[in-house]
Amino acid sequence: MDALVNGANETTVSILDRGLLYGDGLFETLAVKNANPLDWEWHIERLESGCMALGIPHPAESILRSEAERLCHDQQRAVLKIIITRGPGSRGYLAPEQPSVTRILYLSPWPEYPPEMYRDGVNVRVCTRRLIPDNGLAGIKHLNRLPQVLARNEWRDPDIFEGLMFETSENLVEATGSNIFLVESGMLRTPDLTRTGIPGVMRRRILALAKESGIQCQIGTESLQALKSADEVFLSNSITGIVPVRQVDSTEYNVGPVTRRLQDAITSYTAATL
Amino acid sequence: MDALVNGANETTVSILDRGLLYGDGLFETLAVKNANPLDWEWHIERLESGCMALGIPHPAESILRSEAERLCHDQQRAVLKIIITRGPGSRGYLAPEQPSVTRILYLSPWPEYPPEMYRDGVNVRVCTRRLIPDNGLAGIKHLNRLPQVLARNEWRDPDIFEGLMFETSENLVEATGSNIFLVESGMLRTPDLTRTGIPGVMRRRILALAKESGIQCQIGTESLQALKSADEVFLSNSITGIVPVRQVDSTEYNVGPVTRRLQDAITSYTAATL
Repeated sequence: MDALVNGANETTVSILDRGLLYGDGLFETLAVKNANPLDWEWHIERLESGCMALGIPHPAESILRSEAERLCHDQQRAVLKIIITRGPGSRGYLAPEQPSVTRILYLSPWPEYPPEMYRDGVNVRVCTRRLIPDNGLAGIKHLNRLPQVLARNEWRDPDIFEGLMFETSENLVEATGSNIFLVESGMLRTPDLTRTGIPGVMRRRILALAKESGIQCQIGTESLQALKSADEVFLSNSITGIVPVRQVDSTEYNVGPVTRRLQDAITSYTAATL
Repeated sequence: MDALVNGANETTVSILDRGLLYGDGLFETLAVKNANPLDWEWHIERLESGCMALGIPHPAESILRSEAERLCHDQQRAVLKIIITRGPGSRGYLAPEQPSVTRILYLSPWPEYPPEMYRDGVNVRVCTRRLIPDNGLAGIKHLNRLPQVLARNEWRDPDIFEGLMFETSENLVEATGSNIFLVESGMLRTPDLTRTGIPGVMRRRILALAKESGIQCQIGTESLQALKSADEVFLSNSITGIVPVRQVDSTEYNVGPVTRRLQDAITSYTAATL
């Protein structure tokens, strides 16, 4: 495995690391293309703001960048994961005053999805498990991910690509590992994530490109009813990009023009930045 | 460090372990006295029920017992931590169908608290951070402990022993790493933990010993008001035992007869089982 732990070629961490003991840390998952981790600045920005929210000193961007370059320089296509933890500590929840932060970077193989997935869309289900708002933790891509683990393990059918998570039976938030967008009468809509959920870097990129393309955008409350009556639905994630949704339980969708325009815009944007 | 990872003398885990990546695992902390981990059966019972709730195959009790014996056989006084995770996995929240569970057992030095702490009691504060109920995770001693980490890091004053956590401004739940008991008119009361919180093994032992001693017990809703008007207040935890509370913010308490009786009962119980 291509991995660096605090800059060394290692693949393990101490059993006393607070990342393991308490999930006391954060992560980012980046697409690597032609040796470049895409949207690097935005991922680092979110990582740093997460560190600040948890009170973890964030490693210098230059260190993370040079370690990412060491791993990615010969990679055509890969997935780069960055994990920052509060490091090892003594017994108990109290953090060391001067934590010795753990940096973990590692590569995974690029998942080759079939082109039909992007053309025809995927099937999605509604998860039973709810996302519970938690002040002070909303929007932070931390390592306490049991709600997502339990939601994702509600199904094993490989024909179901993702599961949607609601805050209440009415409030749509996101999918277990993706954000969700609806298109209604040409307007792009996505759930507000100030109470719970993680605003993805790809979501942010899509909203920016939509505005540049003159597509009206609305971030707000979205319900199961709004989902059912949407003209188009798609999922977004830094690795998978824009994945059209063909079906949510018994509701079917066509892959529509706004989805196609945004897929093209992402492709062009990515090509232009490399 | 005295540690066993899957039975081997190791002190590290893979960076791909789902315990680190998602907090996808459970833990127990046991007091070791004269080479014996105390209340072993109850700790294992809770660990197994947590594994079942998360869908993690639990290791055979005989394996855990033999590994605990290997670590504890020459220990007069120590703290034994057991961590079970869903083990390493490939990228994503979906668990392997046949997870290769990780077992971690390690010892920490016994924390020597001053006798005055048990005689005169400790100062406690009320944490700002709330405990948010989450169906399906309540009562499970899992590795997603950021709420406790953030609550415990609200203060560094070493004169404050613990911080109390509420579900709402009114509903008292527990302390960051202890359960709480109130005594009012001779009756022992402790918050109901079906919505959130972790029912400790020491809490269970105290309730059992209280019943045996003819002390009336009530598990129910407890408020800040009830806390303020209580005759006696104490904290419980498998390592610290029963710690009387002398002060919660500006409210003061005397260490009373029910607290003393239960401290004695725990001491006698522990002596009798060794």
